[in-house]
Amino acid sequence: MEQRVILGIDPGSNQMGWAILSVEQKRLRPVEIGVLELSKIKDPFIRLERIFNEVCNLIVTYAPGELAVEAPFYGKNVQSMLKLGRAQGMAIAAALAHKIAVFEYAPRKVKLSITGRGAASKEQVANMLHKTIEMVMAPVKWDATDALAVAVCHYYQSQNPVKEKGVAKTWEAFLSQHPHRIKK
Amino acid sequence: MEQRVILGIDPGSNQMGWAILSVEQKRLRPVEIGVLELSKIKDPFIRLERIFNEVCNLIVTYAPGELAVEAPFYGKNVQSMLKLGRAQGMAIAAALAHKIAVFEYAPRKVKLSITGRGAASKEQVANMLHKTIEMVMAPVKWDATDALAVAVCHYYQSQNPVKEKGVAKTWEAFLSQHPHRIKK
Repeated sequence: MEQRVILGIDPGSNQMGWAILSVEQKRLRPVEIGVLELSKIKDPFIRLERIFNEVCNLIVTYAPGELAVEAPFYGKNVQSMLKLGRAQGMAIAAALAHKIAVFEYAPRKVKLSITGRGAASKEQVANMLHKTIEMVMAPVKWDATDALAVAVCHYYQSQNPVKEKGVAKTWEAFLSQHPHRIKK
Repeated sequence: MEQRVILGIDPGSNQMGWAILSVEQKRLRPVEIGVLELSKIKDPFIRLERIFNEVCNLIVTYAPGELAVEAPFYGKNVQSMLKLGRAQGMAIAAALAHKIAVFEYAPRKVKLSITGRGAASKEQVANMLHKTIEMVMAPVKWDATDALAVAVCHYYQSQNPVKEKGVAKTWEAFLSQHPHRIKK
């Protein structure tokens, strides 16, 4: 009997959403979801340390076999992307430190995988998640829903990869397809 | 008798320079320097894993008490900054995992600290390092020299901080002083 535990992370420098998704006989169950609030921490290294420690704790507590990270390919400016890269790096390093495989999905890919539309709104993603996996949980912040969404996306992709013409699977492919997105 | 071991890292997504600096009674000695070559590795996660593992190995091998990272505040485009942030994140996470304090210095600060000029060339920095710390080593790649430079910079700063008017100590201060550097 297949049983998988997937850790979904939506990392940011101000907040980090996380979700533990359990899959047993194709039944998806969110075990726990949450948001790590970082905006009040001034010291950037303490922020990064919180992210690293939180992801390590989640891995030790729930023993996921895989990490799925929501990872935008581009952003509004170079400074925010550097911060985002560092925040993503903490989650990735925590997984590497515990020998867990890492997978990343662009937001568009997550939305497409869950709703069938790459341009779906956060509300549409949340609604579809509620329908699909029978969540019984209090309203939570978007970051936690996003983290659950990327975990579910990873499960779908591993079962039945969406082959969408023209949508890049890797960063390099994305950039070669969208050269105008490279901000000089 | 004060003895310190400082690990200097110049992280990048293609190469990572590293240096182990020993300080004993104000005598600076480069114990070992090197460059981790990453450009031939296609998989971005394997690149990140190499960086994380290499920094962990350096920490376990040489037991540094501090990590000094060369960290530019800005770069040519958002994609390269995201990659750079992830690469920096690996070095920072490795230090966090081993409970080592992390310090970051902008390239300008490193050059200023070593040569007295923030706009010094790589050659000038290397020449000054050779004069200052009596290096006897074969010519190495610039990334390794940069890593040694940031370690030396960190030592100087911890002994006698350069107070340069108008030069920001933190990211936030830098951005508030150089709003035009924020690429929208």
